[in-house]
Amino acid sequence: MLEDKNQPRTPLAQLCEFGLIARISEGFPLKNGSSKLGIGDDAAVLQQSEENTLITKELLIEGVHFDLSFMPLKHLGYKTVVVGISDLCAMNVKPEQILISIAVSNRFTLEAIDEFYSGVQLACARFGVDLVGGDTSSSVTGLIIAVTAVAQAKESEVVLRSTAKETDLLVVTGDIGAAYMGLQVLEREKQVFLANPNNQPDLTPYTYLIERQLKPEARTDIKTLLEQLEVKPTAMIDVSDGLVSEVLHLCRAADLGCRVYEEKLPLDPQLISCCEEFNIDSTTVALNGGEDYELLFTISLSDFDKIKGNPNLTLIGHMVSAASGKELITRAGTSVALTARGFTAS
Amino acid sequence: MLEDKNQPRTPLAQLCEFGLIARISEGFPLKNGSSKLGIGDDAAVLQQSEENTLITKELLIEGVHFDLSFMPLKHLGYKTVVVGISDLCAMNVKPEQILISIAVSNRFTLEAIDEFYSGVQLACARFGVDLVGGDTSSSVTGLIIAVTAVAQAKESEVVLRSTAKETDLLVVTGDIGAAYMGLQVLEREKQVFLANPNNQPDLTPYTYLIERQLKPEARTDIKTLLEQLEVKPTAMIDVSDGLVSEVLHLCRAADLGCRVYEEKLPLDPQLISCCEEFNIDSTTVALNGGEDYELLFTISLSDFDKIKGNPNLTLIGHMVSAASGKELITRAGTSVALTARGFTAS
Repeated sequence: MLEDKNQPRTPLAQLCEFGLIARISEGFPLKNGSSKLGIGDDAAVLQQSEENTLITKELLIEGVHFDLSFMPLKHLGYKTVVVGISDLCAMNVKPEQILISIAVSNRFTLEAIDEFYSGVQLACARFGVDLVGGDTSSSVTGLIIAVTAVAQAKESEVVLRSTAKETDLLVVTGDIGAAYMGLQVLEREKQVFLANPNNQPDLTPYTYLIERQLKPEARTDIKTLLEQLEVKPTAMIDVSDGLVSEVLHLCRAADLGCRVYEEKLPLDPQLISCCEEFNIDSTTVALNGGEDYELLFTISLSDFDKIKGNPNLTLIGHMVSAASGKELITRAGTSVALTARGFTAS
Repeated sequence: MLEDKNQPRTPLAQLCEFGLIARISEGFPLKNGSSKLGIGDDAAVLQQSEENTLITKELLIEGVHFDLSFMPLKHLGYKTVVVGISDLCAMNVKPEQILISIAVSNRFTLEAIDEFYSGVQLACARFGVDLVGGDTSSSVTGLIIAVTAVAQAKESEVVLRSTAKETDLLVVTGDIGAAYMGLQVLEREKQVFLANPNNQPDLTPYTYLIERQLKPEARTDIKTLLEQLEVKPTAMIDVSDGLVSEVLHLCRAADLGCRVYEEKLPLDPQLISCCEEFNIDSTTVALNGGEDYELLFTISLSDFDKIKGNPNLTLIGHMVSAASGKELITRAGTSVALTARGFTAS
């Protein structure tokens, strides 16, 4: 919120679209063997042999998915890549290429676009992804970002949403809810800043939460980890809309029910203290928060010993028959129905 | 502009995103062999063997790329597919899959979304393309559409922008400029309608122009035509931003110059009479119009006899060395430099 306003600002109108695209593509040399032709022609060309291509697509819109008053453009570029490739991680494949189209209104300068793409660059390097295409156009009001991510994989490696079995265990990576609380902190500080622009907030107690909101990480490491543990998930999805929403997706896709245990939910200590400060129930946040970009998956009961005690993986429940319902078992031992908006007393 | 306002209107809030996506995917059974997994999981899965995958990406924004006051949503759905796959036609490959993400504000109803996807469906059937993915989200103001199109092709079939040779001939498909004049007619009628909503315009003299604007066609037929003629283009691009812009792209990508002949430009008779009525120079329109979605390509001089006289193909000029410049030869025989905004006296 406090930034140097005396930086060079070049109106985008000074560059033609071709100049802007050439400028962007310079920063993205192709690294993956399957990236054959990148930015600059009508289409990107990817090469495979006897593998499947996986493609995902997301749309990010200013005012809906992000707020530029506290989201630095570099972080937004990074997050765009993460959001794009997270769906591929959720298929148990390694993301290899990404295409990003942006539409900007004339309030954006060349430096702003550079800032955005510097974040894209950082994430591409971090996650081993090539930017191979996209375009730039103008928008009426804010910034609009469309991202397509691509991977190649053998059919046997791909993990779908719909293939969980009745006795499978439910496992989540990392911790959940922090990105949501990070957003609450940022929204509060925005209000404070609007009331008094000279106020210098102390965000130290919230650094982890804010980082989870502004600079989430895609779990590209989980595929490798599971290979090392010799575990193949039976079904998988990423936690973008909130844990309950994703659990219900897995249940619905396989026509199953589930039990999720409140006491098992992996919460960061910062999340717990921040929830106390905001007087919000941390379980509600963990179940419904969203934007964690962690992975939720099911494994066979017989694989339990392989994942037990791994600091990256938390067993939060198990699948049951559809007739047994979808329930949260609270710390008090009572059952409440899991619904799309969290949980309601059953 | 005159429509029955008494149709059922279902607010989108009545459906969850899952319901909306399920509703959309029902209308799109997969037809191409390479479409392995469509809408419903985190990613679409496409299968190839020893072929390259080609991917393109476009963003369409209300108020920038389309005006819903005269663009029916069904036509917009159709045009979305055309815009998406046209770039693949320009690589000389057959489009096979498409992913569409849309963001809508709450002024859109379920019926409006159905209308949009009925156009998508029509175009998918017409051009033999499978809808395999995408998502829906909300927007702050208008309608935003992101489209990704995918094709598989042998490397030897793909035609790039950058591979034109110095003596190659410049060929364009169909006719050009009509989509632009269609837009001018629609913009004029919108103003008339706003001034007097009871006015019933006679659009008969402009039917072809309006159809070119509202329901353009992708030239998926050209690949087959060129195979039958045994001609492989040396370079190719689609005419989306206007002929001159595309000619300059081909020149720049191959470091060449060109000669384009004004008298050779393929103009529809309706375009000529409409330009007279609007008092606009038809050559300017043909050179800069845009949104024609025709193909512009270069062929070897030795292939001239194969394309000569074909009603789908018009020879409009030829490539020259970069040092010889990029020029339009007017009907009067004078040379003017081609620039991104059309042509200026050299």
